[in-house]
Amino acid sequence: MPQTTPRDSAATRRRLLQAAREEFTARGIAGARVDRIAAAANANKAQIYHYFGDKDGLFDAVLERFTEDAVGAVPIDAEDLPAYAARLFDYHLDHPDLLRLVTWARLEGRTTPSTQAQRTTSYRRRADAIKKAQQDGKVNDTLSASQILDMIESLAVGWTTTARGLLLDTQTLKRERNTYRSGIAEAVQRIVRTR
Amino acid sequence: MPQTTPRDSAATRRRLLQAAREEFTARGIAGARVDRIAAAANANKAQIYHYFGDKDGLFDAVLERFTEDAVGAVPIDAEDLPAYAARLFDYHLDHPDLLRLVTWARLEGRTTPSTQAQRTTSYRRRADAIKKAQQDGKVNDTLSASQILDMIESLAVGWTTTARGLLLDTQTLKRERNTYRSGIAEAVQRIVRTR
Repeated sequence: MPQTTPRDSAATRRRLLQAAREEFTARGIAGARVDRIAAAANANKAQIYHYFGDKDGLFDAVLERFTEDAVGAVPIDAEDLPAYAARLFDYHLDHPDLLRLVTWARLEGRTTPSTQAQRTTSYRRRADAIKKAQQDGKVNDTLSASQILDMIESLAVGWTTTARGLLLDTQTLKRERNTYRSGIAEAVQRIVRTR
Repeated sequence: MPQTTPRDSAATRRRLLQAAREEFTARGIAGARVDRIAAAANANKAQIYHYFGDKDGLFDAVLERFTEDAVGAVPIDAEDLPAYAARLFDYHLDHPDLLRLVTWARLEGRTTPSTQAQRTTSYRRRADAIKKAQQDGKVNDTLSASQILDMIESLAVGWTTTARGLLLDTQTLKRERNTYRSGIAEAVQRIVRTR
């Protein structure tokens, strides 16, 4: 390792994380190449091992950053769940990298305690908000708060997993964005309304 | 290559496809190892290259078989879409390999003309069935037939992509199966009913 100042170290780490984010999003963990990340970050492989241990450790660092960014990016409004679903849909359509990275992590069976803790906290907070809206008579309570939350997420990100998602490209979905978004809001409205 | 009879060839191909299916489902394309597939199939790498060209060609063969199995496995009943959604949910919970393989293919950007053609045919057939039910006044027509189909698929497979899916394991979801399934049916009922 060359001698570096603290400022150099922080800048190198930042460049490595950025390059790793792009590499892992595009190729997953098995498909990512440490030497490609090092080259893109204008660094070397020894620095990756020094700062992050190994390729898995670098992935964990990227996943934790992504999770921090995503949790709370779309605040819930339990009294207007159709609008929340629409915002969630827009967020993921505009930030497809997040879902890609999370999906790689799921398929490759990789997560971290910190990531799971952040998800659990976010999930509970949102389910509790829906539960309160149910108690206040503002949301249908024949379905549990957590299942309503699951359904909102399912509808908001379904374009990534459904047959249509496999047949159309993201650009086409973006052109259909307004129709798709208002359809999702309409469906959520039907699911949560009390009458 | 050793001399083989046609029967040997067919059996070897079948064993290779089975071993490849397990390897690709578990590890994706980049993570799969041709020598592991050959060993599991009691064959050798040369036979893989002979029959399938390369690793990508072997993946394509597996994906096409999977798609053939899946298309039509859950027949649509456009006059009872809540029950269709429930069957789709059960099918995917019982056959998680299919979604895993399709998800690897999507992330790794790999598909085949035959796979896309099968998907397109299946999608159109199902959307047309929903459209007819709308024309007959049996399904809400404020949403398009294709968006209703997308939503049914989203709700049926949402447990793979939502926060809950990332926090719970498949065994726990299976224990909650009845509650989850009836919730999905209830949501679809609310989405498609005409009054």
